Amino acid sequence: MITAALRRAAEHQRRFDARFAAYFDTLTDPAGGALDGPQHGRFPARALDLLRDMSLRGGKRLRVTVLHEAAALVTDQPVPGLEEAAISIELLQTHGLIHDDIIDGSAVRRGAPSVPYAYRDEYPDRPDTALGLAVLAGDLAAFLSLRVLLTSDLPPGRAAAMAAEQADVGATTVIGQFLDLERDFGPVPDLDFLHAVTEFKTTRYSILAPLRLGLLAADVDPAPYDRELRRYATALGIANMLRDDWLDLFGDPAVVGKSLGSDLRSGRRSYAVRALLAADTDGSERKVLDAALGDPQCDDDTLDRVRAIARRHGVDRSVQADADRYAREASTVAGAWRTRWRADAVTFFEHMPAWTAARDH
Amino acid sequence: MITAALRRAAEHQRRFDARFAAYFDTLTDPAGGALDGPQHGRFPARALDLLRDMSLRGGKRLRVTVLHEAAALVTDQPVPGLEEAAISIELLQTHGLIHDDIIDGSAVRRGAPSVPYAYRDEYPDRPDTALGLAVLAGDLAAFLSLRVLLTSDLPPGRAAAMAAEQADVGATTVIGQFLDLERDFGPVPDLDFLHAVTEFKTTRYSILAPLRLGLLAADVDPAPYDRELRRYATALGIANMLRDDWLDLFGDPAVVGKSLGSDLRSGRRSYAVRALLAADTDGSERKVLDAALGDPQCDDDTLDRVRAIARRHGVDRSVQADADRYAREASTVAGAWRTRWRADAVTFFEHMPAWTAARDH
Repeated sequence: MITAALRRAAEHQRRFDARFAAYFDTLTDPAGGALDGPQHGRFPARALDLLRDMSLRGGKRLRVTVLHEAAALVTDQPVPGLEEAAISIELLQTHGLIHDDIIDGSAVRRGAPSVPYAYRDEYPDRPDTALGLAVLAGDLAAFLSLRVLLTSDLPPGRAAAMAAEQADVGATTVIGQFLDLERDFGPVPDLDFLHAVTEFKTTRYSILAPLRLGLLAADVDPAPYDRELRRYATALGIANMLRDDWLDLFGDPAVVGKSLGSDLRSGRRSYAVRALLAADTDGSERKVLDAALGDPQCDDDTLDRVRAIARRHGVDRSVQADADRYAREASTVAGAWRTRWRADAVTFFEHMPAWTAARDH
Repeated sequence: MITAALRRAAEHQRRFDARFAAYFDTLTDPAGGALDGPQHGRFPARALDLLRDMSLRGGKRLRVTVLHEAAALVTDQPVPGLEEAAISIELLQTHGLIHDDIIDGSAVRRGAPSVPYAYRDEYPDRPDTALGLAVLAGDLAAFLSLRVLLTSDLPPGRAAAMAAEQADVGATTVIGQFLDLERDFGPVPDLDFLHAVTEFKTTRYSILAPLRLGLLAADVDPAPYDRELRRYATALGIANMLRDDWLDLFGDPAVVGKSLGSDLRSGRRSYAVRALLAADTDGSERKVLDAALGDPQCDDDTLDRVRAIARRHGVDRSVQADADRYAREASTVAGAWRTRWRADAVTFFEHMPAWTAARDH
C-alpha cells in the first residue's frame, strides 16, 4: 500500500518538474507571461537562471503531492489552478531556502552551491554586492510565488482565495523563522516552544497550506474542515521534524546523505538536542554535551560519546517513539476522512505519515 | 494652485498615517486580522515593532496621494479598498527600504537607525543573527503587503486585480534593484540604461502602480489608458530622479537635510554623475573626477572642485533642464485628461511634476 502512495508521489513529482521548467521559460518569453525588465540587463537574467536552477533541483516535491492529493480527496477530474498553486508553493520554498542560506551561511543547497555562495563565487572581491544579489533573488521568488496565482486565467474569486492563503502563510512562515532564531538564544526551550517553531516555520506552508490550496482549487471551502486539517498537519509536521532531528544525530550517514550532528555543531536546539539537554545527565556527561553543543569543530569521536550518552538516557528511543506516536495520530485523523472523501486519496494521506521524512536540502 | 495640491497631499498623508498605525494594531489583535504566531515568542513581536516604527516614520506619502487622486479622477465618492491599497503600497516600500539598507549598509533611515542597524545594536556579538533578523523583517513586510489586500472584505475580483498589480510590481521592482546594482559595474552606463533603472526600480511601484490601483479601486479598468498612464509615470519618474540626483551634487545641504555628494562617494552612477563622466573633460579634470568617484572619504574641498568642473561643462544646467523638460511632458500628458476625468484631480496631476521631489529617506 505504501508502494502505491510512493508511486503516486513520484508521478506528481515527474509531471510537476516538467511544468515548473516550462514556467521559468514563460518568465522571459515575450509571447506571454514575461516579466518586464530583465531584457534591460545581465543581472536580472542571471538571477532568473539561479532561481530556475535551484528550483528545479527540487527533490521529492512532497508539498506538490499533498496539494494534488488534497484535490483528489474531492474529485478525480482535472482541477484548474493546481499547476499554478504547485508553482506558487515551490517558489515560496525557493524564496525561503535562499534567505535561509543567507541566515545560516550555508554553502550547499540541494547538492550544488547555494544562491548566496554562487554569487560569492562570482564576486569574490565584493561580498556586499554578493549578499545584496542573494537577498534580491530570494525576494524575487517571493513575489513570483504570488504573481503566478494572480496573473493566471483562474476565476478571480478562486485566484484571490488561493493567493490569500499563500500571502498569509508566507507571513506565518517568516514568523516561524523568527521563532527558529529565538529558539537558540537563552535557556533550553520547552517542548511547546519547539512545537511552535515546527508549526509556524514548516507545517503551515508545507502541509496545511497545500491541503487547503488543493481543496480551494477543487472549489471546496476548507473552513468547515479546519480543525481536522490542522490536527493532521500539526501531527504530521511534528512527526516529520522529530524523525528528521533523530536522523541528524542517530541516522546512517550513507542514507541521510550528509555528515551527522549538524544540529549539535550549529547549536540548534532540535527535538533530539533538547531531549538530550533535558535528560538527567551527570557532571561528566554534561561536560561532554556542553563542549559539543555549538562547536563547529566537534569531531566524530565526540559525536560518538554524545550518542552513547543519549542512548544511556533513552533519548534515541523516546524521540523515535514520539515520532511514531504523532505519525499514528495523523494517520488516524486521515482515516476518518473515508466516510466523506474519495478512498484512494484518503488512503494516500493515511499512509504518508509512515514514510521516512527528510528535510528539503 | 500648487498650494492647493500640496494641501490635498497633506490631508491624504494625515489620514493615512492614522489608518496605518491602526493597521499595525490589528496584526496583534485577537479580535480580528491578527497574524498567527507572534504570540509564541519575543522575536516576532520585536520585528513587528520595528516594522511599525519604521513604517510610521513615513514622510510625505506621495504614493498614497497618487493613489487617492487616481481614484478622484473618476469619482468624488468614498472608494472601498483605497485604504488597503495604501497600506499595501507603503508596506511594499517598507520591505524595499529594509532590504535596500542591508544591501547599501545604511545606518540611518528616515532619521532613525535602519532596521539592520537596530538589530546590530541589539546583537553586537552576533552580526549574522542581526543580518538574518533584518532579512526576515523585510520579508515579513513583503508578505503583509499582499496579505492586506487579499484578506480584506473587498469583492474577490477587485482584491485579486489589486493584488496582481502589487505582486507584479513587487517582482518588477526587484528587477529594478538588480539593474541598480548592475549600473555601478563596468563602464559608464548610457542614458537608456539609467532610464531603465529609474523605470523599474522606482517609477513602476511609486507612480504607475498607485495610479492603476486607484483606478482599479474605483472599478475602472486601467487597460484602455495604459499608454498615457505609462507616459505620465515615466516622465514624472525621470524628472524626479533627475532632480534628486541634481540635488545630491548641487543642492543646498540645509534644504536637502543630509550631506551632499553621497552618489559620488558611493560610486553610484546617478544621472548627474553620469553626465559629469560623459562630459568632455581634460586630463586634470578627469583625474579629479576619477579620484572622487567611489571614494567614501572624498572631502568637501574635492566636492567643490568636482562641482566647479561640472559647472564649467554645463552639467548642472543640463541636468536641471532635462528635469524641467520631463516634468513639463508629464504635466502636458495629465492636462489632456481634463476632457475625460474630474477637473480637481486632473489639476492635481498637472501640478505634481512642478513640486520638488526628493527620495524617500
